[in-house]
Amino acid sequence: AAVSEAIFHHPDQKYVLTSKRNNVAIVTDGTRILGLGNIGPYAALPVMEGKAVLYRQFGGVTAFPLCLNTTKKDEIIKTIQAIEPAFGAINLEDIESPKVMEISEELEKKISIPIFHDDRHGTSVVALAALLNSLKLVKKQISSIRIVIAGAGSAGYGITNLLRFAGCKNIIVVDSTGAIYQGRSKNMNKYKKNIASSTNFKKERGALLEIIKNADVFIGVSGIKGMLTSPMIKRMNRDPIIFALTNPEPEIDPLAAKKAGAKIIATGSYKFHNRVNNALVFPYLMRAILDQNIRKIHPSMLFVTARAIANTITNKELHYNHIIPEVGDKRLQKNITSALKKFSKK
Amino acid sequence: AAVSEAIFHHPDQKYVLTSKRNNVAIVTDGTRILGLGNIGPYAALPVMEGKAVLYRQFGGVTAFPLCLNTTKKDEIIKTIQAIEPAFGAINLEDIESPKVMEISEELEKKISIPIFHDDRHGTSVVALAALLNSLKLVKKQISSIRIVIAGAGSAGYGITNLLRFAGCKNIIVVDSTGAIYQGRSKNMNKYKKNIASSTNFKKERGALLEIIKNADVFIGVSGIKGMLTSPMIKRMNRDPIIFALTNPEPEIDPLAAKKAGAKIIATGSYKFHNRVNNALVFPYLMRAILDQNIRKIHPSMLFVTARAIANTITNKELHYNHIIPEVGDKRLQKNITSALKKFSKK
Repeated sequence: AAVSEAIFHHPDQKYVLTSKRNNVAIVTDGTRILGLGNIGPYAALPVMEGKAVLYRQFGGVTAFPLCLNTTKKDEIIKTIQAIEPAFGAINLEDIESPKVMEISEELEKKISIPIFHDDRHGTSVVALAALLNSLKLVKKQISSIRIVIAGAGSAGYGITNLLRFAGCKNIIVVDSTGAIYQGRSKNMNKYKKNIASSTNFKKERGALLEIIKNADVFIGVSGIKGMLTSPMIKRMNRDPIIFALTNPEPEIDPLAAKKAGAKIIATGSYKFHNRVNNALVFPYLMRAILDQNIRKIHPSMLFVTARAIANTITNKELHYNHIIPEVGDKRLQKNITSALKKFSKK
Repeated sequence: AAVSEAIFHHPDQKYVLTSKRNNVAIVTDGTRILGLGNIGPYAALPVMEGKAVLYRQFGGVTAFPLCLNTTKKDEIIKTIQAIEPAFGAINLEDIESPKVMEISEELEKKISIPIFHDDRHGTSVVALAALLNSLKLVKKQISSIRIVIAGAGSAGYGITNLLRFAGCKNIIVVDSTGAIYQGRSKNMNKYKKNIASSTNFKKERGALLEIIKNADVFIGVSGIKGMLTSPMIKRMNRDPIIFALTNPEPEIDPLAAKKAGAKIIATGSYKFHNRVNNALVFPYLMRAILDQNIRKIHPSMLFVTARAIANTITNKELHYNHIIPEVGDKRLQKNITSALKKFSKK
């Protein structure tokens, strides 16, 4: 009762005196479960439980898998608003796009705890970390390379934004309709319009086979197995970097990519070298967010996190087959926490 | 992924393959926190955390404190409907009455997991358990005694219903307006009307001082410290039984009650003998409900649970100052689980 009274009189004490600061809700509606699709909230539960285990194991975060019995945007928003008092942060997970981005935007206006969207934020950070180290190996500058991103869902949108923030000037995003450009009318939404206005300044049009010409980097978050082919890689600039991140089956088989001339290949799978895995990000980033009382996620936070992950690999360790730390690398927490110090709310 | 697919194809497997069956949401809106009143969801959090600890410690149940940022009935109902997939049961806690009973009724129609309302169900079970043992000591039959209940909120309503189910024929409930009787117009609601139509068949009117005349048992869940006086006890039948359950300060000081002639005195406080505490019920009952896949709470379940708790005290142990087990009594789980076997869903 004394603790309750203290919080009643000094509301900010809720972060000090309760489990709120250590509790994260993993919220899904089961509409876009990785590799399974729209399977509903009950079948989604084991996937969210797995995520909670990773949160606990690597970040010491108590994450609760909250699978919702509704797929309506407004009901999802209202539910999260209602449960906010019990949580220090929200992790949106495997909700279909672009609905999930609208949910995220609305919630950022309505509640004052961080809304972390792993499919967008987590994936963009780990992709940028891998890219920063890859560029060291092929000796190219981020400001002068051409990057093609396949996929314009949450991950594609998040990666595009973070790469721009990181200084990338030449990005083209391709979806099932082809290159996204300003003025395209088919198969667009608010977020693709945003992509169109901030990338592809020459308004190139066409399918991936055209667009990939003279690209330095391919980043696949398309959900389409095998969509990248050897002839495409052969059209890329010297030392092509291929991140085929779709899971469980990547956009191209790494051996085929190598054979076609890829210099660096990363996937999302544990079966190959260079596993670009969100688990390098979310447990550690969330731990730092909660401990440092951060209330909102900014691109600059994501950028320094990516750099901290990249720099966890020493120059001695850095190799074409080792551009990114292993999941569970003991150095990650210290490096990420320290990178986020400047965002700490006193 | 294999687990998710199994649930997708065989939905009932969700109870076998996930944590759903072991997860309970403790849901409050912070409007009626014990001893503190309407303090809001943030200040309520420590109280719900304490409850979660008891669930874990005594029942091995993972209870998550879900304090809601809304006090609107419809929003509370919708939120609970939305989060249902992640939980095996809902525990409604410290929500103002009669709103909480309307919420409970609506939810029982809308979702298929048990809605346990501790202020109603838990309190009624532990009160009945204490009463059954008290009656053994004073050698009276439940069917022939007169019981006065002070308080017509969730606890008073729950106790009234369970005592009727247990065979009690002469109950009068008193609230701040006096005795509740059929036809009373002042300060009524749907639940008090239900009480009026099922108790006080002679339509007695008046304040507690009148009504308590010739009562055998007084049960106080009024929230009003000191409302029972010595002169009132002196008007009761031989061997008065006094359950002054309001917390933290009871309806009468146990020493004063003893001096006035009370034969058996119980309170909700750990400071006195005969602590009538919900923690004797909720962790064990919930464990049995989850393990036995029970989807709805019936009065008959509450009755056998009360009897199981009462019978945990052996004849040898039974004494005026020991009518109810201690919290944490190792025999409780076995006895309650076994009592609930017949309600098990195969």
